[in-house]
Amino acid sequence: MWPFFRPVQWLASCLRGYHMPGKAFPQQRGDTSLVLVDEARRFIQDCLMRVGVPAAKVRCISEFLVVADYRGNFGHGLNRLDVYLDDLQRGHAKVDAEPTILSETLATAHVSGNSALGVLVGNFCMDLAVQKAEGAGIGFVVAKESHHFGMASWYAFRAALQGLAGLVMSNAAPTMMAPHTKSASIGANCLAFCVRGRDYHFVLDMAASVRDIGAVEWAWANDEYIPHGWAANEAGFSTIFPNLALRSPLLYPAGGHKGYCLSAMIDLLCGVLSGAQYASHIPLDPRQPSNLGQVFIALDPEFFVPNFMERLDDFCGRIQDSKPAEESQPIRLPGELERMHMNYVEDLRALPYPNTLLTKYRDVASKLCVKPIELAFHRCQSKKSF
Amino acid sequence: MWPFFRPVQWLASCLRGYHMPGKAFPQQRGDTSLVLVDEARRFIQDCLMRVGVPAAKVRCISEFLVVADYRGNFGHGLNRLDVYLDDLQRGHAKVDAEPTILSETLATAHVSGNSALGVLVGNFCMDLAVQKAEGAGIGFVVAKESHHFGMASWYAFRAALQGLAGLVMSNAAPTMMAPHTKSASIGANCLAFCVRGRDYHFVLDMAASVRDIGAVEWAWANDEYIPHGWAANEAGFSTIFPNLALRSPLLYPAGGHKGYCLSAMIDLLCGVLSGAQYASHIPLDPRQPSNLGQVFIALDPEFFVPNFMERLDDFCGRIQDSKPAEESQPIRLPGELERMHMNYVEDLRALPYPNTLLTKYRDVASKLCVKPIELAFHRCQSKKSF
Repeated sequence: MWPFFRPVQWLASCLRGYHMPGKAFPQQRGDTSLVLVDEARRFIQDCLMRVGVPAAKVRCISEFLVVADYRGNFGHGLNRLDVYLDDLQRGHAKVDAEPTILSETLATAHVSGNSALGVLVGNFCMDLAVQKAEGAGIGFVVAKESHHFGMASWYAFRAALQGLAGLVMSNAAPTMMAPHTKSASIGANCLAFCVRGRDYHFVLDMAASVRDIGAVEWAWANDEYIPHGWAANEAGFSTIFPNLALRSPLLYPAGGHKGYCLSAMIDLLCGVLSGAQYASHIPLDPRQPSNLGQVFIALDPEFFVPNFMERLDDFCGRIQDSKPAEESQPIRLPGELERMHMNYVEDLRALPYPNTLLTKYRDVASKLCVKPIELAFHRCQSKKSF
Repeated sequence: MWPFFRPVQWLASCLRGYHMPGKAFPQQRGDTSLVLVDEARRFIQDCLMRVGVPAAKVRCISEFLVVADYRGNFGHGLNRLDVYLDDLQRGHAKVDAEPTILSETLATAHVSGNSALGVLVGNFCMDLAVQKAEGAGIGFVVAKESHHFGMASWYAFRAALQGLAGLVMSNAAPTMMAPHTKSASIGANCLAFCVRGRDYHFVLDMAASVRDIGAVEWAWANDEYIPHGWAANEAGFSTIFPNLALRSPLLYPAGGHKGYCLSAMIDLLCGVLSGAQYASHIPLDPRQPSNLGQVFIALDPEFFVPNFMERLDDFCGRIQDSKPAEESQPIRLPGELERMHMNYVEDLRALPYPNTLLTKYRDVASKLCVKPIELAFHRCQSKKSF
């Protein structure tokens, strides 16, 4: 709900800011509470252990989800935990499964995820791609029978940490409308590219749609409207109501037919080439297993140019030094907003979650018999910091 | 000029259609004439030979330019010839230069174009990538010291002809505005992806901008307005006048910051990684050599999935069979509009060029002492067929 609908409460909340949680929690949809980072991690780990995930994997998955929230990519953080828990309980994602290499060359590999959780398949594939890139200059790994792998830049950054460039793509369930249609024929497929210089990181993480489904879910959880042009209602007309947009997801492609074509290219590489499901073969119904496909590419810049890091820093500096149209809106490099969110979380040592989400996880906690999330503070009215 | 400004002439031209060229040529900006495909090829070859390009290269370059026009990609066809001729005469593109391999592995190569014409560098690099892909599953070739390489799908299709998937990228002179700026800090860099099934071809060829500079030039030559949102005038405000847009090119990125980030990623791979120029290092002034960078990737699907062609056909069929919102606007696969233009040209056996362009080439012909382009027919009023 926007401030001008409830001016008195909004003013009061501005004056109050965060305060200790009282009896009134959860107050209203749209209110936000702070959860200490360690507490969020503890809760995720407790839940995963309760559904039988081994301890080593629990650490990896919880880190992966917390980092998504830490970077402000809330659609892929705690927000996804209940879906993962459901999939693990239904057997769509297998607790004990390990990815295996089906075939390989010096520079490529074809991997079956064997329905392990996406983050486990992704880490395995990117590590393999890095290993191949160190020998051949490039490592190209495609995975089938994989699962939702969350924040794609997690894997691209994994390559960047080794001094390589990482490029990652994944297909997804069909939620994106092609131009001139009112139904979804392809996923809002994602692409991430990451590379590190000495002074700059270039961390691109984008869906081929204007915004991904996680952003719509997050708007719903925060009781916010979505801008026109993000998503359509069931009749295929643009809507500002996230609840209508979530009924039968119809996301608009970024840049019209260009986003749609880019998404098709990603699906061809991730789905068609890998042997996974693709396009409308991927079920939207979460009760069916998805068998997603993903591509992981690692490139070793040292094979091509000796002073890559200096060149990257110069490139990023040149873009950042472009004159902004308005001083209040400086030029941002990909990944810079995420860096700002990380600073914000570091100052707080806590993550801001909407109470709607926390209420959902109180139910999850009670079902799984784990200790519910303990709040640090909560406040009325969600307000975006960025 | 739109029809409703000159309704009488427009009606007359519809009734007349094309007719034999009379004394009045060139009539007005916006009028179009037909040139037989063979005649266009002859003229291009004559011009190239006159500036000293060897016969074997002349055949390759003329085919490349004619095919761009044949596919309706007019910005990269005959429209570019005068720029190539200027560059060859100034020595920015070298007549006798051949690309050389600087370093290579089983799957990658770093190539110097040695300032040969872009199409010669591109063909060399893609052939090398295909050769590596046949051994290693993937071939990744980056080129520096290259030249404008025209229609990117030409090279991607070259890989597709061998049954492989081709992915091609190039950087370009800075003509694209980052969001929140009113100056160009990066090129409208391009990406092409091509792969063949039995029944379908998937031919994606896109710039990261809403439209590339060639489309604006083509609108100018056809005396057409450009839609708002393609390009800005010198002050950084969207314009519908192509002449204002061409003064200091400021193109809008496709999908806002997504197109801009994608373009930055392409420049990082093509320019920063290859050792070529990048971002605002690339001169806009055509009197300076450009030293562009390009990436050529070939992938052999047989290394990953045995029935790739069937899967591709199924994928394309599924997308094409989506229900359109209006029956008059069927769903198009990438490359389908180009296929329609090819059919149109095959029916005519001729290419439609605006008289503005043909007048320019009459001057070029007289300067180079070659026979001018002979017209098949001309007609008043350019009208887009698609």
